[in-house]
Amino acid sequence: MKKIEVCLSPELLHLFEVKGKSVVIVDILRATSSIVTALAYEVGCIIPVATIDECKKLKESGCIAAAERNGQMVEGFDLGNSPFSYMESHLKGKKIALTTTNGTLALSKSKDAERIVIGAFLNISSIAKFLNSKAEDILIVCAGWKGHANLEDTLFAGALIEILKPNAIIEQDSALLANTSYQQAQKNMFEYLSHSSHFKRLQRLGVEKDILYCLEIDKYQVVPILKGDMLIPAVVEREAVNIPR
Amino acid sequence: MKKIEVCLSPELLHLFEVKGKSVVIVDILRATSSIVTALAYEVGCIIPVATIDECKKLKESGCIAAAERNGQMVEGFDLGNSPFSYMESHLKGKKIALTTTNGTLALSKSKDAERIVIGAFLNISSIAKFLNSKAEDILIVCAGWKGHANLEDTLFAGALIEILKPNAIIEQDSALLANTSYQQAQKNMFEYLSHSSHFKRLQRLGVEKDILYCLEIDKYQVVPILKGDMLIPAVVEREAVNIPR
Repeated sequence: MKKIEVCLSPELLHLFEVKGKSVVIVDILRATSSIVTALAYEVGCIIPVATIDECKKLKESGCIAAAERNGQMVEGFDLGNSPFSYMESHLKGKKIALTTTNGTLALSKSKDAERIVIGAFLNISSIAKFLNSKAEDILIVCAGWKGHANLEDTLFAGALIEILKPNAIIEQDSALLANTSYQQAQKNMFEYLSHSSHFKRLQRLGVEKDILYCLEIDKYQVVPILKGDMLIPAVVEREAVNIPR
Repeated sequence: MKKIEVCLSPELLHLFEVKGKSVVIVDILRATSSIVTALAYEVGCIIPVATIDECKKLKESGCIAAAERNGQMVEGFDLGNSPFSYMESHLKGKKIALTTTNGTLALSKSKDAERIVIGAFLNISSIAKFLNSKAEDILIVCAGWKGHANLEDTLFAGALIEILKPNAIIEQDSALLANTSYQQAQKNMFEYLSHSSHFKRLQRLGVEKDILYCLEIDKYQVVPILKGDMLIPAVVEREAVNIPR
């Protein structure tokens, strides 16, 4: 049986061992929901970077560049963080460099993991199936909001645990808290989230449509994984291995 | 209406403003439960210190000295962290220096607050009444376990919010998570806690009697507050103010 742990904020990640683990990065509103959407819509790959400077450099070297800070697109970039902006057909096959307030930071802090996968409600069952097919213990890293734990990432962690727990050991306190909160909130996640100031801040930015979309379950089957510095679909990787050399 | 926030671990405390707030320090197993017990049993005061060295110095200067690390009493000290050890009549009126793995660290990190109070299930209603009598916003600081969030402190935060919320604004994500978890777990907190590895570790140390005691609700009415470097009962302070000079 594998162990599942939850890191409620990247600020706590130094307390965890990531080596040898399957790490799931979660930033429901909206980085990881956007990444899942982009790969479901067949962008070539996403190159996540922690800083705006790194993102600028990749833009100069020919990438399409997406940068979000504080919920809004950074001036001078091609895309922001709305999942809907990744559905455009002209992005198909393209390399996209991405930096966001919380999500890409969580990712860069997890680089020593055995594998890194990108989770969202949009692909939760596929993520669970993928993790079940691997032997490693699981660490779910919630991106949170500027260092704080947030509701939507914690609820996702709890929902993923709900699916995985028949085959897993859940005895870490944060994992138990996340799962309990999900059990209590699952009937109406939107209503539950609506009490949060963080959620209200996003609503004020006019992204309610994005929020509803990001709470949709199993819209896609894609499992984004990190290969080198690129996020690509796990299935592509599997096919690639089968190509005779 | 005052705002209530929860800091799930001292590792996250730098993200919060403590100035101008009523800060509630929580370390249910067992520092704050022991402090409440000690003051209910009329020790003179408790001097919380962050390090074993500071505690040693206070012992040399005549204090009774209590030191706990990793759930056990540190060699060479007079007391550990079991609430039962603070019920002894020979401690009445005495100054006790105290350092613990998590609780006293949370306290020392909160020193800039308007006031600091010590919360436990043992005095939860009195704490709520005291906080309601003050105008300041409230920050509940969970001591956690070695930087990690833990169940029992988070549940206490959720339980305190449950009492305070008719007169308060609850829209911070960690506060909502704590309150939700408490609502789900309140029927049988001991059973809920028993799933946690942290809880099992304490059980292995043979402190199950302590755990059951620390989950008792409203056994005492004392409200320990920090005055200078000493924890004393809030009522003593109120009486002292009334003494004509």
